[in-house]
Amino acid sequence: MKYPLLTCPALLSSLVMAQPQTAKLKINQQRIQTRLLELSKFGELPNGGIGRVAYSKADQEGRAYFIGLMKNAKLDVTIDYAGNIIGRRKGKNPALKPIAFGSHIDSVPNGGNYDGPVGSISGLELIETLNENNVVTEHPLELIIFANEEGGTVGSGALIGKITPAALKSMTQSGLTIADGIRAIGGNPDSLSKVARKKGDVASFIELHIEQGGILMKENLQIGVVEGIVGIQHWDATIEGSANHAGTTPMNARRDALLAAAKLIVALNEVVTSHDGRQVGTIGKIAAEPGAYNVIPGKVVLGVEIRDLSHDKIWKLFGEFEAKAKEIAKASETTITFAQSSIGVTPALTAKPIQDKIIAAAKSLGFTYRYMQSGAGHDSQEMAQIAPVGMIFIPSVGGISHSPKEFSKGVDIGNGANVLLQTLFALDRE
Amino acid sequence: MKYPLLTCPALLSSLVMAQPQTAKLKINQQRIQTRLLELSKFGELPNGGIGRVAYSKADQEGRAYFIGLMKNAKLDVTIDYAGNIIGRRKGKNPALKPIAFGSHIDSVPNGGNYDGPVGSISGLELIETLNENNVVTEHPLELIIFANEEGGTVGSGALIGKITPAALKSMTQSGLTIADGIRAIGGNPDSLSKVARKKGDVASFIELHIEQGGILMKENLQIGVVEGIVGIQHWDATIEGSANHAGTTPMNARRDALLAAAKLIVALNEVVTSHDGRQVGTIGKIAAEPGAYNVIPGKVVLGVEIRDLSHDKIWKLFGEFEAKAKEIAKASETTITFAQSSIGVTPALTAKPIQDKIIAAAKSLGFTYRYMQSGAGHDSQEMAQIAPVGMIFIPSVGGISHSPKEFSKGVDIGNGANVLLQTLFALDRE
Repeated sequence: MKYPLLTCPALLSSLVMAQPQTAKLKINQQRIQTRLLELSKFGELPNGGIGRVAYSKADQEGRAYFIGLMKNAKLDVTIDYAGNIIGRRKGKNPALKPIAFGSHIDSVPNGGNYDGPVGSISGLELIETLNENNVVTEHPLELIIFANEEGGTVGSGALIGKITPAALKSMTQSGLTIADGIRAIGGNPDSLSKVARKKGDVASFIELHIEQGGILMKENLQIGVVEGIVGIQHWDATIEGSANHAGTTPMNARRDALLAAAKLIVALNEVVTSHDGRQVGTIGKIAAEPGAYNVIPGKVVLGVEIRDLSHDKIWKLFGEFEAKAKEIAKASETTITFAQSSIGVTPALTAKPIQDKIIAAAKSLGFTYRYMQSGAGHDSQEMAQIAPVGMIFIPSVGGISHSPKEFSKGVDIGNGANVLLQTLFALDRE
Repeated sequence: MKYPLLTCPALLSSLVMAQPQTAKLKINQQRIQTRLLELSKFGELPNGGIGRVAYSKADQEGRAYFIGLMKNAKLDVTIDYAGNIIGRRKGKNPALKPIAFGSHIDSVPNGGNYDGPVGSISGLELIETLNENNVVTEHPLELIIFANEEGGTVGSGALIGKITPAALKSMTQSGLTIADGIRAIGGNPDSLSKVARKKGDVASFIELHIEQGGILMKENLQIGVVEGIVGIQHWDATIEGSANHAGTTPMNARRDALLAAAKLIVALNEVVTSHDGRQVGTIGKIAAEPGAYNVIPGKVVLGVEIRDLSHDKIWKLFGEFEAKAKEIAKASETTITFAQSSIGVTPALTAKPIQDKIIAAAKSLGFTYRYMQSGAGHDSQEMAQIAPVGMIFIPSVGGISHSPKEFSKGVDIGNGANVLLQTLFALDRE
């Protein structure tokens, strides 16, 4: 009822006519692969990996290449103040809000060429396919190549108005602050507030991405229908015992901070795996002081992370972990304290109607699929704050990403792009 | 039967006369405490600790002070090629080998003034007491102040001929190599081989030392009769799993090197505490790679140490630990390998007859005592290679050492010095 125009007879007839025609359209898989290869030259490393961190020379050159492709595809290209590249294509109905899609082309240091580029180049491929088949959608379209995804979804964050002046001063992997980096790619950090979109400004956002996990490959499935992007919480756990001589302090007189920390590491694993679901808990960082063979560690700091689609479940798991920590501290005569080290990432659920459309598209194309969650962060999680979001995963070989070994097969990418295309048509028919 | 002179009638009669007289002699506790205070000025730190690392200016000044005291006590003082300070006092019987005693006056960085000085100043106090009471022992006496104990028993190591040319190149806490350090305190590293003594060159060696543990204080005992100085073995345990995305890798698909390492830390503690005895096992060092909240650690290296009076027991415990490591590696799909990181320290047992004399001395003085092992290394462990050795411990307040908080009470030091004196007389009567 929000868009009464959708119910007018003229539009309905155009939808009825468009549907059978667009269902047969296919993207050009070869073109996607060629462009992935061309893009991989920007920041290519001797080990076969990609070093195209946001704002770097390689990133700037990759963006220039991509902007060229977008212009060739007759998109109306602008760089917003955050440095996001936005390519617009008119729809039949200028009163409709745009359907947006895209991803990012920046990489982690020593990363791969699939995390981001697959969704970006496939998004462009949708435009090429529409152009070649003279299809004009009802909605305006926006292909968005978000700036600096790997450095903390900065471009998409700016698009929803959440980048603070303080964050702009952060140093990035490029050696530039975020503010200077934004300047280096044609943005203007002083005008960032003008970039922010409101709820309703975008009709829908869809992103195609590699899974970055091994589930689809292991289960031999073609498409992942993302239910949501997990929330993330980090804590620093500090275990304090008593540093003492490892030779002269009897075993029963020790307050060994590392032994207590070891029990805490095991406890987190037990808590997280004792519940059904896809929650993950990791201790990836550890430092023990003073750190010598012959001194019982007096202090250990652990970096703790819990991720889940449910914010409440994250905190429920943490509560159980904290209870175990209390028992361990008591038994080992140590103290264990937790400091939440950031405000964390709020879980972002994708829109059920878009999930349904992705499934319908996969089915119509004969692809196998499953629901899954995204354990990694994505621009989609930011966009979910202002628009209904859909996310399509394709298999990652070996489940590897953020690595020179990151790889997805051409056929899988092509499948994903075709699902993206049909999902777009389904959204456009609304 | 080795010293037939001991059985000659003249000597026997002198012993019979000496015994009741010497049993009443007491050291001057106040003088020991005064000299401890005077020595503490060399290398005194603002936090009350002592920074008198071997070969440093503070060490050189402390040695000069001590040499002055030794000369005042009419000792014949020489600096050997290793920089050991040796004060000789003639005995009645020049055919007897010397009874030696002493300790060291160098400290760890930010250490205390009791670990070493207590035995050194008490040794000098024995000489003063003998002088004041005009007692001449049968055996010649040697008060030895070993050079660079804290840097790896270098002076006592040289005295038994085990310092290699390669070791001389090692850098020390003073900023000098061992070779240059030896030069700085009046030794000559090029002539070190001339310092080495053979088995039988010394009749006995006795050392008074602070416990550096909390056992005597906890059990409210005055004297520790050291049965031996533990052997030490170090290993580096390397756990290799697979570094992976902490968000996208399901719990059941992980090869988490830190989780396996945590189980290994717990396993060492279980192995070491599952046996009777005073063995200790410590993991004091840990490094996890890559070391980020959001990456499952792919590699962890642990520094493992086991100490015991029995070399065989150390290796038996390590064998059990290794077996547990195999189980952990299998269950966690990681690999765990061990590298022995040094040749280690061989356990050194003290001589039973000297233990008996220490106990007899403690009993005759009305002191409580117990057998114990030394978990820390000492010059005595080197001397045990060439002579029967005895070692006397006195309580450390709070069991703390190698710290500005290191402290032993004057009365406890005095008690220890009196036991040292009576033990000397008992050895001299042999």
